Formats: sequence, structure tokens, C-alpha cells
Amino acid sequence: MKNIIIASTSTLHGGSYLEYLLPALQSHFKNCKSILFIPYARPGGISHDEYTQKVSSAFEKLHISVKGIHEFENAEDAILNAEGIFTGGGNTFLLVSQLYKNNVMQLLSETVKKGTPYLGTSAGSNICGLSMQTTNDMPIVYPPSFKTLGLIPFNLNPHYLDPDLQSKHMGETRETRIKEFHAFNSIPVLGLREGSWLEVKGEKITLKGDLSARLFLQNQEPTELNPESDLSHLK
Amino acid sequence: MKNIIIASTSTLHGGSYLEYLLPALQSHFKNCKSILFIPYARPGGISHDEYTQKVSSAFEKLHISVKGIHEFENAEDAILNAEGIFTGGGNTFLLVSQLYKNNVMQLLSETVKKGTPYLGTSAGSNICGLSMQTTNDMPIVYPPSFKTLGLIPFNLNPHYLDPDLQSKHMGETRETRIKEFHAFNSIPVLGLREGSWLEVKGEKITLKGDLSARLFLQNQEPTELNPESDLSHLK
Repeated sequence: MKNIIIASTSTLHGGSYLEYLLPALQSHFKNCKSILFIPYARPGGISHDEYTQKVSSAFEKLHISVKGIHEFENAEDAILNAEGIFTGGGNTFLLVSQLYKNNVMQLLSETVKKGTPYLGTSAGSNICGLSMQTTNDMPIVYPPSFKTLGLIPFNLNPHYLDPDLQSKHMGETRETRIKEFHAFNSIPVLGLREGSWLEVKGEKITLKGDLSARLFLQNQEPTELNPESDLSHLK
Repeated sequence: MKNIIIASTSTLHGGSYLEYLLPALQSHFKNCKSILFIPYARPGGISHDEYTQKVSSAFEKLHISVKGIHEFENAEDAILNAEGIFTGGGNTFLLVSQLYKNNVMQLLSETVKKGTPYLGTSAGSNICGLSMQTTNDMPIVYPPSFKTLGLIPFNLNPHYLDPDLQSKHMGETRETRIKEFHAFNSIPVLGLREGSWLEVKGEKITLKGDLSARLFLQNQEPTELNPESDLSHLK
């Protein structure tokens, strides 16, 4: 039975890393003494070791130890044997490239579908969708495919941002970008604001946190979904 | 001799399409009765015809007629025979995919290098660099390569945005994204603010407009370049 938390962001403004999620994570990883961390997205180019250390400090509060996938001789074994798995944020193009390069994209998907508890934040959430095509990230490396884990039957736009009506900037709004995606793709897209997350228990998908989320369906006006909305029907 | 205008944006806040560039375009396209428009990036999913009509209306003020590349039976002939060429903004992933699909990426590069006057805005400017890897756009389609025209020996970030110090949003700033690019790539990146453009005459590259531009070099602190700066040495 799938057991997944898919969070828009790791950190809220003014808060510390993972702080707002700790109560949810305590219950989510309650049967885990240790978790496997996938640092491949490494934000701002920090090293795998530095990133893993940061995550380790946050999980100390839950008395859970953390080991980075790069510390294992065999990445596939690391995933197969993990009690729980966390993929952190950073650059989604880099993360997806590394998952393919290390030949673990499909294995990670299968493992999480079988029930290993999984946490994703930001880029680590993006890959839970059908494709990474609604990421906000810069294409700093060329991945062999945009296809991702498919743990949920739609796509995500983490860090979703409403248009700034005061802005004089002429770059595309997030909504315009998602509309462009829908000119070529029929996959639903959920704009997940910072502070929101999805809880996946088996086939049930629930919106968590205090904020509404914005749902984009092809050829339809976007709609707002309230917290605790059931998204299991989406596809 | 190369003769190119590479603009951050087509439109300034409160202005009409291409309005702020018209004086520069009048001189740039002075020997052209007609220009070829490449609408492949089609912003927000508008049609090639709609987009070409919009561009046509703007160029009427200069008494220049506009024909879309999609109106020609053969895209290669259209480029070879063009008096001038304009590639408009929209989605860079889509633009690059279409240029490869229609087998004109290399031909367009060669043609502009030989001297056909070229104008790019936004996505149409992004492709003037060595790669499209510093675009802000969403990866709505999967291009066969990120390599672009290479008309200048560096990359661009159009619509460059300074960090909003008041923002409570935790998504990456533009500067963080470019830093991530430089964790894996050594190509210089020029952050071109809306209202700025590059004028390329032969091998001379000059920053135009009233604003400074932000230059990012690998492993160095970014610097600000004043209008009229000579960028010919960059590589």
C-alpha cells in the first residue's frame, strides 16, 4: 500500500528545514529507525555530503538516522533495503538525470508503490507525477527522458505562485506556463502552494496543510481545491 | 557580417508589442521590404497564424510585410530567401523542438552568421546563445537537444529578475538557478533585464537600452555591466 508525503517545499519562510512537516513526518516514518536520502537534486550545487548532513540534522529531532544514496556501493540495493526514502529538492533536471544514470528510476517507483514510506519535497515531489514537465527549474543538464515515477496519476507544480498583480515584469506567470503545457499535454496539473502537501495512502490522495491548491485541467478554467480535498479521482 | 538584435522582451510594461524597439528596428531592417517570422514558440499556445498576424500589425508601422515560416511549403527555402528574420517569444522548449523537427536549426545559424538581419525576443533571444539551458520556460515538450544557434559565444537569461527581498516565497531566485547551471557548465550567462538588448555587428556585441545587465561567470561573483558595454571579449 502506497504511503507517501509529497510536499510543495521543504521550508516555509521564517521556518527551519522541514520544521512545519515534522509532526506529519513523525507519524509517516514511525516504523523507521533510518531512512535513505536521495540528494541528487543538490540545490545551488552543494555536495551530496553537505546536503545529506543538512537532512540528517533535521531528522535527528525524530531520532531517525539518515544515509545518502551516494554512500552506498550499490544504489539499487540501497533502495531495495530502505526502511523509508526521502528525495530532497533542488534541480529537477539534475535529479531526473541522476536517477536514470544510476538506473534507479523504475526501481524507486516500484519500491514506493509496494509500500516503502516516501517523502518528497520540491524537486523530490515533482518526480512523483507522471512527468517532470511542470517543474519550475532551469534545464541545467539534459535528461534522457522527462518521464518520472508516476506515483500519482497527474503532474505537480510545486512552489505554486499566484500572479503578482502589482508586478511590471512581462515574463510568463505560472498560470500561463501551465496553460502552455496544456496546449500539448492532457495530464492534469496541481499547483501546490508552499505549506501544502499531498498525503497518499494506498490509492487515496488527500490535500493537506492550511492552503487551497489550484487545479489545472486541459481546456478548462482552473479551480481551487480546499484542504482535505480528495484527489483520488483525478486523472 | 552578423547583424543581430537580441532583446530580453518583446513588450515593456504599459507599452504595446515591440513598441520600445521600433526605432532600433527601423534602422536594423532598413533594407527589408519583408521579413520572415518564426512563430514556433507560440506563447500561451496561440496558433502560428494568430501570432504572425500580431507581428504583422507591429511591423506595419515600419512598412515591412511579414510572412510566417509555416506559410511556406519549404522551411529551409524560406530561411535561405529571407530578407530579414524575426523569432518571437513563447516557450523555448517548443521553439527548439520545432526548429529541429523542421531541420532548420543549423541552417538558421549559418544564414544569420552570413549576414541576414535577425531579431530575437525572449525565447527567440534564448536560442541565440550556445544552449537553451538558461531559459526560464517550462519543459512542456522534450527537444532532441538543448544546443541552439550559437550566434554569440555565451548564454542568455532573458527577462532577468533581481531577487525580491520582500518575498516570502521559497522557490529559487534567478541567481540561484544560474548558480546551479554553473555547477555543471562553464558557459558565461548574461542576465538581460526587460528593456535591454544586445546589438551584434560582425563580432562586436554591445549592450543597449537604459539598464545594466548582470553577468554570471563560473566560480565568480556576478557583476553589473553598464549600457554600451562591449561584450565581444566574453567567452
